[in-house]
Amino acid sequence: MRHTISVLVENKFGVLARISTLFAARGFNIDSLSVGETENPDVSRMTIVVQGDDRILEQVEKQLNKLVDVIKVFDFLKTQHVERDLALIKVKADKHNRSEILQIVDIFRARIIDFSSETVVIEITGDEEKIDALMSMLKPFGIKEMCRTGIIAMARGSKQN
Amino acid sequence: MRHTISVLVENKFGVLARISTLFAARGFNIDSLSVGETENPDVSRMTIVVQGDDRILEQVEKQLNKLVDVIKVFDFLKTQHVERDLALIKVKADKHNRSEILQIVDIFRARIIDFSSETVVIEITGDEEKIDALMSMLKPFGIKEMCRTGIIAMARGSKQN
Repeated sequence: MRHTISVLVENKFGVLARISTLFAARGFNIDSLSVGETENPDVSRMTIVVQGDDRILEQVEKQLNKLVDVIKVFDFLKTQHVERDLALIKVKADKHNRSEILQIVDIFRARIIDFSSETVVIEITGDEEKIDALMSMLKPFGIKEMCRTGIIAMARGSKQN
Repeated sequence: MRHTISVLVENKFGVLARISTLFAARGFNIDSLSVGETENPDVSRMTIVVQGDDRILEQVEKQLNKLVDVIKVFDFLKTQHVERDLALIKVKADKHNRSEILQIVDIFRARIIDFSSETVVIEITGDEEKIDALMSMLKPFGIKEMCRTGIIAMARGSKQN
């Protein structure tokens, strides 16, 4: 099953290496991972998306909790939450098809953030399906490059994780 | 100096652990890191932001290039590029101050993606300064939670990295 796991960690040296080694040692390939700041400058949040055996993952979560620089591990599986991914997509575009691309960008509430005579760069946020849907609409024009941040998640409502 | 480095890697087991260990071993603390899909399903792109000694970083880049699952390492330092970060921010909001928060959200071209009687969740994309500026505008209302994806980057124009 697919799990989105949030790991609050102290902003210290080598924490990322230790955590990713822990997943690799148990045979989990990480689908997406992002590490960014939180409201507290001494603390970072890692958001990890993995697929695999639920029981083994439970063990991994217990081991994570034992690491000295890990403050909190939270699995979003049973919590109502929002997930967002950010993608930048560079698409071939010239004066003949640019307005068609702009239309698609509008429908998906995406944004053009760079523009040249041969290409545009599109920024889109959403869950994975929305980004995949935009990708498939843009494919016929020619996708030159794409990169995604990986997912971050937050519990709905006033609950804090 | 601050460097934004893109590392194209084969989607394989343990690559992330090897790369993060390499940075940790050289004494680099990673400011932000994201790993996400690319236009090719067998390839992931890691975007790493680090600060530190330029000469040591050059050595790290050389060592990265030697890793078997690393396809390409690119430092954006001397390339015109766009950088984007995605943040989710949960702010205390009630019927008395909600409209004021909505106004700020509008000005920053951010979006409300969740809503309860006590809180709103705001989604914003931009470079680090824009997100920091929004954070400081929202602080007086009470920030309950914040998480960021870490930066991704793309060269401007038709250039491909």
